Amino acid sequence: MIERVLPCIGWLRRYDAEAFHGDALAAVIVTIMLIPQSLAYALLAGLPPEVGLYASMLPLAGYALFGSSNALAVGPVAVVSLMTAAAIGNVAANGNVDYASAALALALMSGVFLLAMGLLRLGFLASLLSHSVISGFITASGLLIATSQLKHILGVSASGHNMLELVQSLIAHAGEANVPTLVIGVLATAFLFWVRAKLKPMLKSLGFGPVMADALAKAGPVAAVIVTILAVEFLGLDGDGVKVVGAIPQGLPPFSVPPVDIDLWRELMPSAILISIIGFVESVSVAQTLAAKRRERIYPNRELLGLGAANVAAAVSGGYPVTGGFARSVVNFDAGARTPLAGVMTAVGIGLTAMFLTPLFHQLPKATLAATIVVAVLSLVDLGALRRTWNYSKMDFAAMAATIVMVLGMGVEIGIITGVGLSLVLFLGRTARPHFAVVGQVPGTHHFRNVKRHEVITSGKVLSVRVDESLYFANSRWLEDMLYDMAISSPTVKHVVLICSAVNAIDSSALEGLEGLSDRLDAAGVTFHLSEVKGPVMDKLKKTEFLAHLTGAIFLSQHDAMAALDPEATAAAEKGERLPGSRSRHTA
Amino acid sequence: MIERVLPCIGWLRRYDAEAFHGDALAAVIVTIMLIPQSLAYALLAGLPPEVGLYASMLPLAGYALFGSSNALAVGPVAVVSLMTAAAIGNVAANGNVDYASAALALALMSGVFLLAMGLLRLGFLASLLSHSVISGFITASGLLIATSQLKHILGVSASGHNMLELVQSLIAHAGEANVPTLVIGVLATAFLFWVRAKLKPMLKSLGFGPVMADALAKAGPVAAVIVTILAVEFLGLDGDGVKVVGAIPQGLPPFSVPPVDIDLWRELMPSAILISIIGFVESVSVAQTLAAKRRERIYPNRELLGLGAANVAAAVSGGYPVTGGFARSVVNFDAGARTPLAGVMTAVGIGLTAMFLTPLFHQLPKATLAATIVVAVLSLVDLGALRRTWNYSKMDFAAMAATIVMVLGMGVEIGIITGVGLSLVLFLGRTARPHFAVVGQVPGTHHFRNVKRHEVITSGKVLSVRVDESLYFANSRWLEDMLYDMAISSPTVKHVVLICSAVNAIDSSALEGLEGLSDRLDAAGVTFHLSEVKGPVMDKLKKTEFLAHLTGAIFLSQHDAMAALDPEATAAAEKGERLPGSRSRHTA
Repeated sequence: MIERVLPCIGWLRRYDAEAFHGDALAAVIVTIMLIPQSLAYALLAGLPPEVGLYASMLPLAGYALFGSSNALAVGPVAVVSLMTAAAIGNVAANGNVDYASAALALALMSGVFLLAMGLLRLGFLASLLSHSVISGFITASGLLIATSQLKHILGVSASGHNMLELVQSLIAHAGEANVPTLVIGVLATAFLFWVRAKLKPMLKSLGFGPVMADALAKAGPVAAVIVTILAVEFLGLDGDGVKVVGAIPQGLPPFSVPPVDIDLWRELMPSAILISIIGFVESVSVAQTLAAKRRERIYPNRELLGLGAANVAAAVSGGYPVTGGFARSVVNFDAGARTPLAGVMTAVGIGLTAMFLTPLFHQLPKATLAATIVVAVLSLVDLGALRRTWNYSKMDFAAMAATIVMVLGMGVEIGIITGVGLSLVLFLGRTARPHFAVVGQVPGTHHFRNVKRHEVITSGKVLSVRVDESLYFANSRWLEDMLYDMAISSPTVKHVVLICSAVNAIDSSALEGLEGLSDRLDAAGVTFHLSEVKGPVMDKLKKTEFLAHLTGAIFLSQHDAMAALDPEATAAAEKGERLPGSRSRHTA
Repeated sequence: MIERVLPCIGWLRRYDAEAFHGDALAAVIVTIMLIPQSLAYALLAGLPPEVGLYASMLPLAGYALFGSSNALAVGPVAVVSLMTAAAIGNVAANGNVDYASAALALALMSGVFLLAMGLLRLGFLASLLSHSVISGFITASGLLIATSQLKHILGVSASGHNMLELVQSLIAHAGEANVPTLVIGVLATAFLFWVRAKLKPMLKSLGFGPVMADALAKAGPVAAVIVTILAVEFLGLDGDGVKVVGAIPQGLPPFSVPPVDIDLWRELMPSAILISIIGFVESVSVAQTLAAKRRERIYPNRELLGLGAANVAAAVSGGYPVTGGFARSVVNFDAGARTPLAGVMTAVGIGLTAMFLTPLFHQLPKATLAATIVVAVLSLVDLGALRRTWNYSKMDFAAMAATIVMVLGMGVEIGIITGVGLSLVLFLGRTARPHFAVVGQVPGTHHFRNVKRHEVITSGKVLSVRVDESLYFANSRWLEDMLYDMAISSPTVKHVVLICSAVNAIDSSALEGLEGLSDRLDAAGVTFHLSEVKGPVMDKLKKTEFLAHLTGAIFLSQHDAMAALDPEATAAAEKGERLPGSRSRHTA
């Protein structure tokens, strides 16, 4: 069925006037919002401003062909722009290729990688990025981006590869600040923060509808752009040292051919993969959040194809890597976008801008664009997540904190790799040393509970231990040693029972480990039993020689085990009594 | 307490005549066994024969100082010798350093690495090597080693970096085989196989005690050595092209200084780490097996220190990397070794050999040593493990098979790295797509079971799903999508209950995922509940805002959940009835 390959055929067939009205209104609003953003993010990526406009045209049509979201708005975004700057900064420093060509190559590689992932249905690999790592990454990137824009607001030149270098450089050059630039930058930043925080509620209280109030508030950057252009024009501020965007070529995007250069490709490869994965994860999160509101469905593998097509389109039309943006997708959704055609209409709007309006941006101060970026990215910074994560899980906190520290200290790429690596190692570490409990019988019942949490009676002859994790190679040896040590450290113990109620799987290593433990305990005069083995685990054990090898038995329930191995003490405990040799324990 | 640092002080203080007799007898038997092995493994490592003797002296004393096993016999072993050959072959090919110096550097680095692991108490890291990977590695190494020795048995020169090249080279040169060499090699191999399989039972049936029968059988290689030396001497076979060991320097090991060369160290680093870890894992397995038989205890971190000291000792006394060997440790144990002093006495025995007996080995045919190696390593090959693992776990089989194929095809180092990487990825893969079950009520009971395995009644209003795995970042998004898709695909569903009886932990990503799912389901008009959450998991959830965020409730038991959410159907099912809208399901 062709609809499965080209989902656009499905929605185009059902297209009607109502959908058209929703899409058209959304397109107008998103276009107005996207113009200053496109220029600003191109600046952040270290590219000429028109590249931002080009990246906001053909890629939107590319996504519309394959993507599965009806509301996602694709284009240049802050984090990917920062990553692009880092990647092409590295290769351009080596001198063989200019920034713009490297950006094309990066978009092409990212597009091909995303398409390949989609065709191989590898979307699930993105789940190796934990929320903690992503959250830490976005927060640190936001801080890094905001800091990098301060030079435009101060009107100085400053640079650095990490937060420390950036701040040092800014401080060293602070004395050279250009006062008119600083005034524009600070006022624009303050205005945009005010628009974001206060304008919408104010407009609502003045009687505007919520959609209109939201649209006007989101158009705040356009107002800042218009006012500061007029200020520069009529006050002649460019003569006073205010840096402006300058001439932007008029017209539609050129057809571009990314450079064919194996060495360049090899150098850019790791960056292209990281940009693809980060962009994909960010984009899918937004798309899923919006789809749920209309009980729609996002298909991650189709999203890969949509974003892949968007990036290939960026590569052949003078753009740079793109992905789905958070703020603009929400605006698109709220304004009533019904199908991906809204994106195509936005592309037309940006196209008209590129053809007719670029001369108007000549006098646009870079400080205004920097203010736009600062306000946008600071909304991504979520330092409260550090506290919340600390309260919930020290391990996740460690991964998040390491990601933040490494992004700020060593850059975005090393930061994200550190975070992913650490979260995998910590996960293995947790399952390698799982929670376990020695259990005893709750007096007067058939129940068995942790001796540290409940008042229970334990047998002197039988050691019963519950392990709360699947058994596999990384915890197999630990389990062997732990049970063996506990057994031989108490000379009265004749039986060890491993309670498997929380064991969802036993791999071959753990199976051999249990066999070895059975032998070691046997040599020490102790019999080894299991209890409460789950159905699927038991099915697999039955296919092996383990049951013949085990010195003891497998009991259906822990009560069965105790009734068979220490009948007197168990019967007494059921009556709430304690025999000599049994112990009553509660250490908590 | 100094005994914790130097365990030898403990056992020396308790040393008595009985222990001395056991140690001395064991030392004599192990010395006789170790002489041909030392020469043979040095040959395998591509080093002069005396290096094997040197590696069997000071390192044994080094281990005795810190090691925790009373029976482990340290020295050159087959797999580590093969890995040494691969490592020093690479660097010697670059030409800056000779084989013997590279071997010293390798031993030093391996020793320092093991000591560092021991001091940092990182012994647990070895558990990242699954049994399947180790088993596959040992089997493939055994096949590779046996094949590499065929050239000595044929009396031809042949070489290759992998199994295919080796076999091709052997076939190409088979026509040049030296007949007297071939006769010695084949007869020695056949004799040694016969000794291993038949001699011990025969001696026992002739009335020898089991220890004596075992010792005589293990001395088989010595008999082969003596007979073939005499044959060469009296038949003048060295004149007929039989390659012999030749002159071995007489005397104690020289004091040696490993080369100080940063480039060399950097090149050898990965090999040194792999050799250390493989050697450690092999050695600890043997030590633990033997310790269990006497209800003794092995401390992995002390083993690291013991093996580290042994390798540093090898580096300063003209040796090469060593570890605990399987066969010789068993002999040592069976012969009655009581303390690590048996190892020191063995070292003295080897020292006396090196001082006085080396001239006797001049006429020893290399074919005899090759036969010793072939018979020893083929006993390590366990192809049956492939079938057993296939039956039990396809995932573990994949890791094992990949390790074997890569060791045979690409060499030992790439092989082991592939195996470890694959087993980690497969483990993550399993937990990323865990087993789950839609459950229904067993008629007439309060029990809820998998609809695919049992005849149960499900509610049309409530979807109940049990997930058999902890929830964490790699399965969080999968769980969200799975539950959301199931819920919206059935328009009658108003409630989703996630049964958490098998969930041992929920990390931050999964927590955010559950919050997101609650929101998505809410937007779709479905309420989200949990049931049977474990105590420790609930404790952590209570510290968050999750409970306030959740649209539904957390029920103590699944029965409580059903009684609250669909009371009529649940009450009816308890009586064994089925209301309209409920379904009776059994699809297995």
